This record gives sequence, structure tokens and C-alpha cells, in this order.
Amino acid sequence: MKYQTYLIDLDGTMYRGKDKIPEAKVFIDNLNAKGIDYYFLTNNTTKTPQQVADNLTNNHQISAKADQVVTPSLATAAYVKNMFDDDVENHSAYVVGEYGLKSAVFGTGIKLNETNPDVVIVGLDYDVTYHKFELATLAIKRGAFFIGTNADTNLPNERGLVPGAGSVISLVETSTQQKAKYIGKPERDIMDFAAKAKNFDPKTALMVGDNYNTDIKCGINANVDTLLVYTGVSTHEDIAKQEIKPTHEVESLDKWDV
Amino acid sequence: MKYQTYLIDLDGTMYRGKDKIPEAKVFIDNLNAKGIDYYFLTNNTTKTPQQVADNLTNNHQISAKADQVVTPSLATAAYVKNMFDDDVENHSAYVVGEYGLKSAVFGTGIKLNETNPDVVIVGLDYDVTYHKFELATLAIKRGAFFIGTNADTNLPNERGLVPGAGSVISLVETSTQQKAKYIGKPERDIMDFAAKAKNFDPKTALMVGDNYNTDIKCGINANVDTLLVYTGVSTHEDIAKQEIKPTHEVESLDKWDV
Repeated sequence: MKYQTYLIDLDGTMYRGKDKIPEAKVFIDNLNAKGIDYYFLTNNTTKTPQQVADNLTNNHQISAKADQVVTPSLATAAYVKNMFDDDVENHSAYVVGEYGLKSAVFGTGIKLNETNPDVVIVGLDYDVTYHKFELATLAIKRGAFFIGTNADTNLPNERGLVPGAGSVISLVETSTQQKAKYIGKPERDIMDFAAKAKNFDPKTALMVGDNYNTDIKCGINANVDTLLVYTGVSTHEDIAKQEIKPTHEVESLDKWDV
Repeated sequence: MKYQTYLIDLDGTMYRGKDKIPEAKVFIDNLNAKGIDYYFLTNNTTKTPQQVADNLTNNHQISAKADQVVTPSLATAAYVKNMFDDDVENHSAYVVGEYGLKSAVFGTGIKLNETNPDVVIVGLDYDVTYHKFELATLAIKRGAFFIGTNADTNLPNERGLVPGAGSVISLVETSTQQKAKYIGKPERDIMDFAAKAKNFDPKTALMVGDNYNTDIKCGINANVDTLLVYTGVSTHEDIAKQEIKPTHEVESLDKWDV
């Protein structure tokens, strides 16, 4: 089947850290040539959609606009709006995270409250401190709803696999004896948000990514077909072990017939 | 039986935060009157033994000397010395924690190494940052042995139940996909350390505390008799549910015949 909408992961799929994946650019060129809609579905919450698009465009020569970028920050903001039936102005949040997350959440109009918020949202925060963990812990113990942006335990940087959002969130899960409600991949929440926000039919969409545990599981959870590309995390050996296989597999994205 | 050595918990047993427990002072006076040895066995790693003793003496009128205080910081330092057969000078550690922990660990003579240590020790750190978590994570992933001082998920302060060492450690356990080796109560390591350092016979010792999950379990794990006092965390209802009961139970410590 020919897919009408592509949801595409970034790191390991469109590039590897600072390194280009030339086959990924060919794939995007092919989508553009046929006028097929595509969106980048990333678990990055630290950057704004504009920053993510600029990185693709300027550093990887992959054309991207801010409104083609879907992040757990945006999906979390929508989740919170929905929680309060759009009456966000009369509710409050405390957020542990970078500007990408804070700008999305507080962009809804929800108030900032450090001591008695209705919801606590925890994501990756390179400036996290004990004080922030204490505020989050006390607020959740007081009854605030607990959202974790995404469960990724690690992310790669030039020094190695450093702590990801899931690790930061796990501290608060331990200190509150509560599990967070997660929004990012592999949860279907981010896909459902994308389908609604970008107005596409999940039945004719394809989730493309290199990581079985986030990208492919997200597609599976949201009933969206999946394409695993072997340019990143998951290996043939990993996939052989999985009971539910990706809908499609390809060595590199230039080989995929859009 | 009359016990020859008492191991005594602090918060909930000797005092409640800043509040005195007058019956606890009576108990200590009784021990002193009979010349019975006693040590304070606390999971506090942030303070030095001298600071702990000064707090008891000055704020609670309970006479205590620094060498009567046993902490996971001291037990961890001894554990590390033993790991390297006393050849600590040729080994290195990275420590996430307060001065109480750092002074004990580096007091052994072990070198500080942030990037390639032999051992990473994580405890409660009120100034913890992402950078410290990153250093700990990378070092453990590189092969450093991972020690957690104590597993307490929370500790009480005037604002509520804030994150404890166990919460801080859980972040690193998640980011490294490894469990820490724990030293503090309820592990027997701290009791074995105390018996060796203070030269007492565990068979004639009694562990006294208010918390079944730390104090009493520590005694059980180390084959030391236990006395639960109902002035703190554990309730009669909690104890009724436990399969292994404390050896003794008492409403307040003045009622205990030393």
C-alpha cells in the first residue's frame, strides 16, 4: 500500500547525532517529489519545533518547517488542555524541563505554581536540581497529577549514553511511590495528538524509525503501520526476538519506495 | 536476656525532627547508669559523626560522642577499603553526596576521579545536578562498581516527605540499568561494620528503632535481636502484618528495662 502520511523519527533515522545519513535525505526528497505529507515525530522535549526544524534544515540539508515537528512537549500541552476542558487559565502546573517543554505547556495559558499545582510535568532538564525534585515530589504527594514526557532512560551525546527523561522521571516516581502518565513514544498519546493536530488518517499513515522500543511500539500501540530502518538502535537480532514485527523493514531509507 | 550493646536509631527513636522525645533521654540515662555500651546507627550520610553527636547533645540533651555514631558513610568507606584490600591510594572514586559522605570516603586515601573511577558512590545530595548524574552514569557504564549508601526513598523535613538517597540512587539505577550495592539499613553491611569497628558481639546486641523496614529488618538481616519502639514510623497495624516480628516491642523507651 502507498501511505499518505509519514511520521518520521529523527536521531538514528534522519541523522546520527551530528553525522548525516545521506540516504535519509534521498528519502525526504522522494516524499517531496511526490507531494506526500510528512511529520517528524521526536521524543525531544528540550527544543522548540522551530529549533528542531532549523537543525534539520541547516545541519542536515533536510527541508523541514516548525509545523512539521511533533514533540512530547506539544502533546503534553494538548493533554493538559484536554484534562481541564480547555479551562487552563484557572489551573496550574509545575514543570521540570527545558524551554522546549515549558514554552509549550505555559503557551496554553496554564498558570505556573511551584507549591500547589494541579499537574506536575517532568521531562529532561539539564539544569535539574534537588530543589526541583523536592517541589515536584511534594506537589505530587499533595495530589497533583503526574505526567512524564517520555520514558527514554538514556540519550546519546558525544560522551556516551547519558541520563534521559525516563531516568529523571524515575527519581520522582521513587520519591512519590507513583507512576507517571507518559505521553511520548512508545505511548499512543503522541500519535493520537499528531493525527488530530495534523489532521491525518492513522490508517493511511506510516511510522518510520530506527528504534523498536520507541518508534515501532508507538506505531503498534496506535494501530499505525511501521517501517523499521536499520541505521540506528535496533539490529536484525533485536527484531528477530520480537513477537510483533514491524510492518516493513529496510536497510536504509533510500531503498524505500514511497 | 540483658543486652551488652545497644544500636540505636535516631529520627523517630531519639527525637522527631526538631522535637524531643523525653522518654528517649530517660532510656539513654538508664544505659549510662548501668554502664552499657550504645551506638547510634543512623542512615544519615549528609552529616559527619561529630555533627550527629553535637545535634543529640546540644539540641536533645542526649549525651553522645562522635565515636558512638555509625553512618552508611563510614560503612561505605570501610567497604571500599576492603574492596581494594586496603590499597585505596591506587584506586579512585566518584562520589555524589554531601560532605558527611565525601569526608568519610576520601578520608580513606582513595583518589577522586570524575571520569574513570573504580567505584561510584551515590547518596543524598542536596546540591545534586544533571552534571553529577551524567558523570555517575558514564562512569558506571564504563565499568565502575556502583554503591548506593542507603535505599530510603524519602526523608521528612518541615515541608513534608522529600526525596531521600534511594530516590537519588534510583535515577542512576535507571540510567545505568544496574542495581546499586546498598550499605545502610536494612542491609546487614552497616551492622557488620559496626560490630567490627566497635568490637561488640552481635549475639548480645540489640537494634532499637521505630522503623520496621529499616531498623528492624537490619537487625533481622544481621541476626541481631530487635526492639521496635512505637514513637515513629511503624504502627501496631504495620507490625501485625509482618511475618517476622521484632524480638521485642515497646510503646516508649522509658518502659524498656535495660
